[in-house]
Amino acid sequence: MKLRILQSVLVDAVSQVTKAVSTRTTIPILTGIKVTAEEDQLILTGSNSDMTIETKIPRVKDEKEQLFVEKIGSVVVPGKIFAEIVRKLPGNEVEWIVGERNGITIRSGKAEFQLHGLPSEEYPSLPQLYEEQVFSLSADLLRTLVRKTSFAVAVNEARGVFTGVLFQLEEGLLTCVATDSHRLSRQKTQVESLPDLQLNNVIIPGKSMSELAKTFADETELVDLVVAGNQLLARTKHLSFYTRLLEGSYPDTNRVIPQTGDVEVTTKTKELLQSVERASLISRDGRDNVIKWTVSDNQVQITSASQEIGSVVEEIQADVKGPSLTISFNARYMIEALRTIDSEEIHIQFTGSMTPFLMQPTDRNDSLHLIVPIRTR
Amino acid sequence: MKLRILQSVLVDAVSQVTKAVSTRTTIPILTGIKVTAEEDQLILTGSNSDMTIETKIPRVKDEKEQLFVEKIGSVVVPGKIFAEIVRKLPGNEVEWIVGERNGITIRSGKAEFQLHGLPSEEYPSLPQLYEEQVFSLSADLLRTLVRKTSFAVAVNEARGVFTGVLFQLEEGLLTCVATDSHRLSRQKTQVESLPDLQLNNVIIPGKSMSELAKTFADETELVDLVVAGNQLLARTKHLSFYTRLLEGSYPDTNRVIPQTGDVEVTTKTKELLQSVERASLISRDGRDNVIKWTVSDNQVQITSASQEIGSVVEEIQADVKGPSLTISFNARYMIEALRTIDSEEIHIQFTGSMTPFLMQPTDRNDSLHLIVPIRTR
Repeated sequence: MKLRILQSVLVDAVSQVTKAVSTRTTIPILTGIKVTAEEDQLILTGSNSDMTIETKIPRVKDEKEQLFVEKIGSVVVPGKIFAEIVRKLPGNEVEWIVGERNGITIRSGKAEFQLHGLPSEEYPSLPQLYEEQVFSLSADLLRTLVRKTSFAVAVNEARGVFTGVLFQLEEGLLTCVATDSHRLSRQKTQVESLPDLQLNNVIIPGKSMSELAKTFADETELVDLVVAGNQLLARTKHLSFYTRLLEGSYPDTNRVIPQTGDVEVTTKTKELLQSVERASLISRDGRDNVIKWTVSDNQVQITSASQEIGSVVEEIQADVKGPSLTISFNARYMIEALRTIDSEEIHIQFTGSMTPFLMQPTDRNDSLHLIVPIRTR
Repeated sequence: MKLRILQSVLVDAVSQVTKAVSTRTTIPILTGIKVTAEEDQLILTGSNSDMTIETKIPRVKDEKEQLFVEKIGSVVVPGKIFAEIVRKLPGNEVEWIVGERNGITIRSGKAEFQLHGLPSEEYPSLPQLYEEQVFSLSADLLRTLVRKTSFAVAVNEARGVFTGVLFQLEEGLLTCVATDSHRLSRQKTQVESLPDLQLNNVIIPGKSMSELAKTFADETELVDLVVAGNQLLARTKHLSFYTRLLEGSYPDTNRVIPQTGDVEVTTKTKELLQSVERASLISRDGRDNVIKWTVSDNQVQITSASQEIGSVVEEIQADVKGPSLTISFNARYMIEALRTIDSEEIHIQFTGSMTPFLMQPTDRNDSLHLIVPIRTR
């Protein structure tokens, strides 16, 4: 393998795949980045047991030559140190030669590095996918879905399917659901797909969701999502992100979502968020971060108390329909949900002090958040 | 105690004193902030066993009323939570009342917090200083002195005086020295003082040095430094920073600084820094972060090798006087020193492969860095 490449292009590609490179050394070769130089492109792959990111650097981009492959070939380079070296190289161009026994030479400006590589044949192959189930959405929409659901998954690995986000697709409508059984977030959106494509139980690990959003952070293209067996592949022309899917059946969450509300509160999202954040300063050291709401005519009183620290009481103006109500819940669940809501006003529906309540932006119906209250004395 | 104060003013003052507030709870009252309301000012104090910061908020600043004390008094508020509450208060103004048994009420907008305070009489008194030894310098110069010396102190607490920075004053010339016995940094500067003031063995703990720089980060005034007993007080009109001094005698470091050089190298500071940083990528996992320099006609060859990772070799252009030389040393020491040098060019003086070498900016003689080489095979 012998090639020259623009330093800035290599830096970008390496930082993409590095997100998936394993930091643990249980499978040593996965701490490396696999590099394959073909005649017209350079392919970089990073992977850990759960995720794989592959990026392709074409010879020409925006009518500018950026890669000059003199001799094709492949090698596995040590991931972490390679990423740092590439970032700090002094020249605009990098010369890269792989010699005998996978010895790697990197030249740039007046600097020359020699690194020990590993044979690329020992690197695991990419999952083979049969592309039957494909749908597409904009990278921007994908990031929004991740941001508005993935915070609600269970963190404890023992919680199985609840550590992932459920993707369901029917008649072009994608529904994403995340819950840790104390709160739930659901987003719906129209995507591009064949009209008869149906997906029922695709569960993406929560950690992969965040990496997915980061991987396509700068993309403006449409992203194809391909589901096959226990793998999901998210893909644009030059970037592929593979993640394993979670096994198990995701329960039907529709039945826990109340259809009507006895008490309805409409208020400003940002002011509400700030009030709950203040109340949480007092409650957060407690076991469940409990704050109390007292809903009455045109206002919500938010209180929180801790024997050690003290207490807080605050009123916020709101449009209230229905009888008075007192309810306690975990402030963090509301804060995390409110932070993902971009709409100016929020609508909250209660059915009682002991039953889950619903939060939705007032100006759209594709988004909902549910919180289970806490029984207090 | 009863007062009203502008929220932004209170936020700034609290964040100043919080830097010194103890996070450990060995002395519980030191996790609090002492607050004293006098008729025309509010005094906030934060302290741990080593440092104390006191800030005074005057009633009027820049002809604007910012503080309205209705009833004088004092209390100790819980530090961490108070700082966070103050930052998140909804209104421009804060009402602050201390009632019976040190109960604290904080009102702002429609929010009201109740916090448990502690009696201010239990808070330790400030050190009493007899102000005989005073000198002054600009806050900007003080920050520069800290930045250019404190990185070189020993980190290990067992190293005694070497964990601090030595301040010496004679005929208005302040000399600051820091060394961990592997490298040394020395800065000299003219300060304002009585002509006969002499200080010989004032040793400020390294940690206090960094906090000192942060505390006066936004100051533009002259800072008075007052030395008395085992305390140093740095002070502007509204801000006082106390730190204990280290006990013990700092050795005379003049004799380790070579007066002449057999081999002299002059080169660009920034390019040299970047080269050494690259070489350090290979060497830093090794025990001493060793890189090797080979100085010859008009160039320095920098090399570094690690059995596990690989090697690097790089040449930099330099103006070299004297015979060829090979020397090995810890790359980190050179990197940390070079990062504090703002001058474009740097002059390096070697007297041999086994003796300390000197680095100085070419355009000034108030600053020097010394590095002890490493014996290699």
